[in-house]
Order: sequence, then structure tokens, then C-alpha cells
Amino acid sequence: MKKGLTLRDLGEDRSVDALVAGLPEDAAVQVGPGDDCAVIGGDDDPLWQLLKTDCVLEGRHFASDTAPQSVGWKAMARVISDFAAMGGLPKHALVTLAIAPDRELAYAKGLYDGLAKVADAFGVAIVGGETASSPGPLFLSIAMTGTVEPDRCVLRSGGQPGDVLFVTGRLGGSLKSGRHLRFTPRVREARWLTEHFEVHAMMDLSDGLGADLPRLARASHVGFEIEGNGIPCNRGVSMDEAISDGEDYELLFAIPPEGARNLQDRWATHFPELRLSRIGRLMSVEHSSTMELPGGYDHFN
Amino acid sequence: MKKGLTLRDLGEDRSVDALVAGLPEDAAVQVGPGDDCAVIGGDDDPLWQLLKTDCVLEGRHFASDTAPQSVGWKAMARVISDFAAMGGLPKHALVTLAIAPDRELAYAKGLYDGLAKVADAFGVAIVGGETASSPGPLFLSIAMTGTVEPDRCVLRSGGQPGDVLFVTGRLGGSLKSGRHLRFTPRVREARWLTEHFEVHAMMDLSDGLGADLPRLARASHVGFEIEGNGIPCNRGVSMDEAISDGEDYELLFAIPPEGARNLQDRWATHFPELRLSRIGRLMSVEHSSTMELPGGYDHFN
Repeated sequence: MKKGLTLRDLGEDRSVDALVAGLPEDAAVQVGPGDDCAVIGGDDDPLWQLLKTDCVLEGRHFASDTAPQSVGWKAMARVISDFAAMGGLPKHALVTLAIAPDRELAYAKGLYDGLAKVADAFGVAIVGGETASSPGPLFLSIAMTGTVEPDRCVLRSGGQPGDVLFVTGRLGGSLKSGRHLRFTPRVREARWLTEHFEVHAMMDLSDGLGADLPRLARASHVGFEIEGNGIPCNRGVSMDEAISDGEDYELLFAIPPEGARNLQDRWATHFPELRLSRIGRLMSVEHSSTMELPGGYDHFN
Repeated sequence: MKKGLTLRDLGEDRSVDALVAGLPEDAAVQVGPGDDCAVIGGDDDPLWQLLKTDCVLEGRHFASDTAPQSVGWKAMARVISDFAAMGGLPKHALVTLAIAPDRELAYAKGLYDGLAKVADAFGVAIVGGETASSPGPLFLSIAMTGTVEPDRCVLRSGGQPGDVLFVTGRLGGSLKSGRHLRFTPRVREARWLTEHFEVHAMMDLSDGLGADLPRLARASHVGFEIEGNGIPCNRGVSMDEAISDGEDYELLFAIPPEGARNLQDRWATHFPELRLSRIGRLMSVEHSSTMELPGGYDHFN
């Protein structure tokens, strides 16, 4: 029998598009699948609810000998980073752990220590979860709720031609250096941005700029161009690696050009420890650069 | 090196107790880990939010050759059943799927067809999720939000000595018969109960009465006794199997004795298709029966 099209054949983005097509919706869903968080709320509500789930898998997102505290930190920090990307605040978390029954309790407690540490640092309460016995690789999934003011909620899809693109921090080498296990979600920075600036579009960089920037551009129905030497690389990391390594958990965002200079000045005063780099511009699709970015990370390839 | 205490050594309930001890909390958490759902809300809020996550794992909760539509139905119906157990209504779901990349897209779409079918039947919108490539067994986790009126929110912990215990439907043989893949969460029945009766404690039966009833009694700081012939068994199922098989997803609840007779009469009129059985009573711990129930299902053993 001929085998049908596999998930690998189709790749991650197109597989997900195919799976979520035609799902039941409801009137309170402002944003469904496809952004960093789902957004729930009515047009007159003072706060909207944000929902997000994400997971880490042994052997893929962390090595088997990684300290469990670091695994816990990473699993929850990834999700908190998605709330930053919406301009929101995380609130309540559910933890799903699939783990072999012969693992030591001390290991599982180490996971929870890491989860609790980052939860505590960002004001998140862990309110429940599920623990399943599994013979497979360890799997840790975090579902989280949060809130955002409707006028500060930033989607991927609001980018406009002419917007200036910025990224926080430096990119690349996250796995090699171990930064992927101890990064700080940019909640404070994103809240400051949405309080003081008109941010048209924002996302966090998890699969690498080479995969994520085209997603933001596609969601906004615009093209983009990268400015020469604009991409801030971590020490010892090539430009190609900075673009394709992934797991940076820095913010990528677009603001109108009239705010760009003012932002750079004020940023340096508020966040002297964290670099902010202007990396390019959004533009209309027909004027878009034909330059291809290296691909970034596809979870099915 | 001597190996430390494992999760299997400790068993499921005590492992989970050990893991969730001392987690960060916040003032809006009415109920944290340990009930069917977490409950979030302030004392004056007109609605409380319910949160729940649950998962199914290939080879444990379903066989590898199970139709994907049935797997999807089961994964989401289990979670909806927990909202029934609180007296609440499910609203929005996030889907996490860990799946081998060489699975066919048609299989994954089958899973989503099952998810969408039960979601649609219970007014749930699927608003997002995560799809990860995994070499291990297929893992499908559903996180869900919902709502409940504060005066209709039923916990496991409200049972009082003298309360009469009821279960809906019949128990046992769920895996053998395939009922675990096509059960109907008792949302409609639970909403009717909390509208018309003072329900002191409620939960859904997922691990078998033998594991779940002692959990309800422990949470309520009471004992219990089972009435002779009170437990409704499915056809071809022994009493021991009815008590210990699990995966029934029927409701177990406790109401004051003065409501019990009235309930039985009105139930028969409203839900003529679904049996309601009085199975026993809650009582003070010191007067509790010493009868041991067969164990039910422990996920780590």
C-alpha cells in the first residue's frame, strides 16, 4: 500500500495549518491558532485572556543528563516568553509530566524546583497538572493563562510596510552555550514597550530569525529586508548560526519609523544591560527583498 | 550508588503530593492541585474560571491500532468530564501533540477530527496548541479552560457524614468493551444536579471507584460505607472489575440525605436513559467501615 503524505513531507507550518483548519470556534476568540498565544475576550472587556501551551521533550529540547532544575526552568520560561511576545502577563500554569516510573522522586522534584523558580520570578501560580507514567522520553508540557489589556495586545499580524524591525539581545549559539536552559523571558521589556510605544507586531524568537521573521511577515501580509550588519550575534557565532540556530527567546518586533529613534535612546536608559538592535524593515510584498534567510528550525525535519 | 526512592515506590497520589508541595500560589486561586479542576476567582466574581489538563499516551490509554478519531474523542472527552465533575462548563482548549514525523498527515487529521467532534458537541473552541516531533509513543495532551458559578462549584472536599453517595451509569469493563473510547461526559447531568440540588462533593470516576471514592472521602475528611448490591455493574463485569477497572467517566457525588429520595424520583424523569444508583454513605471517620475496596488504578504501578 502506498504510504500517504507524512508530517515530515509537509513540514511543521503547513502540517499545523492543515490540522487546525475548520476547528470549532466561538465569538469570544479574538485570536485562535497561529500567534504566540490565543486571545479570548469581548470587545468591551477591560482585560483579555491569553492562553498558551508548549512542551519540551528529552533528547530534543534537553539532553538526558541535563540537571532537572534546568529542564523545569526551560519548560516554563518558554511559555512565559510567549506571553511577553503578546505584551501580556502570565498568571496560572498547569504542568503535564510524562515520566518513566523508575525515575527517582528526587529527579521529579528537581523538575518542579525549576518550574517553581521561574514561576515565582514571574508571578505565575502553578495550579494543577497531570503526571503520567511513560516508557518513552521524558515529556514536560506547560499550559498557561495570562492577561493583557486590549490596547496593549500585540499580534504577529499587525506589521505595516515601513515599520522598523528590532530584536532584543544577541542571537545564536543558544544550545551550544547552554543559554537555552537559563534564558530570561522578556516580559518586563515587552510590558515597557507596549506601555510607551506603538508596537505593530511582535513575537519571540524560538525557531531562529530565519524561520520566525518570515512568519511575522507572512502573518502581516508584508515583506521585509534585513539591514547590513544589523543582526546581533553572540560571541563565537557566525551570522548564519545567529539566523538559524533558534532557542534565543529574544523579542522581534516592528514599530513605525517615527518611533524608532526615540525608542533606541530611551531603551539604552531603561535597559542598559540588554542590547536592542535595529535589524531591518518591513515593506510591501512587491518591493520586498528577494534575499533568502537560512531556514531556521522545522520541528518535523 | 544506592538508587533513591522512585515514583513507582511512592505510587501516584503520594508522588503528586510530594511534587506539588510548596508551589507558588496566589490570592485568586480558590482551589489548586488535587481536585478535578483548579478554580480561579475572587470571592465577589460572578463566574469562576476552571482549568484542567489531561493526556493520553499510546500503549497506555489507547492501542496503536485504535482509530485516530477515537483517540481524539477520548483525549478531549476525559477533560470535559472533569469540568462536569466541578459542576462547570468547558470553554476553550489547547492541544499538545507529540507525534513521530513519519506518521501520515491523514492520521493526525483523524485525531483532530475526533477532537473537533467532541469539542463541537460540548461547545468547546480549540484555540491553539503545540505539535512536537517525538520518536516515542504518541502523546496527546489537552489543556482546557471553563467557567462555573461560585454557588454551583462542587469540590471533592465538601462531603459530610450522612451524605448519600450516588453514581451515574454502570461501572466496569470500559477498556474491554471499548466504552473508554466513546463515552459521553456527564456535563448536562452535572449542570442539572447543581441547578436543583445541594451537591456536597463530586468527582468523575477515571481510576475506578476503588481508587476514586477513597480520594473523595480523604479530601472531605470523612469515611464511607458501601451498601450491599449498590454498585451498578456493566453486563458481564464482576463486582471487583466494576470497582477497579477504571475509565468509566461516570459521576460520583454526595448529597444530604433529605435530598436523596427526591433526587431519585426526578432523575428518572429527566434522564430516563441513564441509571442513577445509590451506592452508599459518607460517615465520620471513626464510624467508618473497615471494608477495603479493591485498589483501582495507580498510574505508577
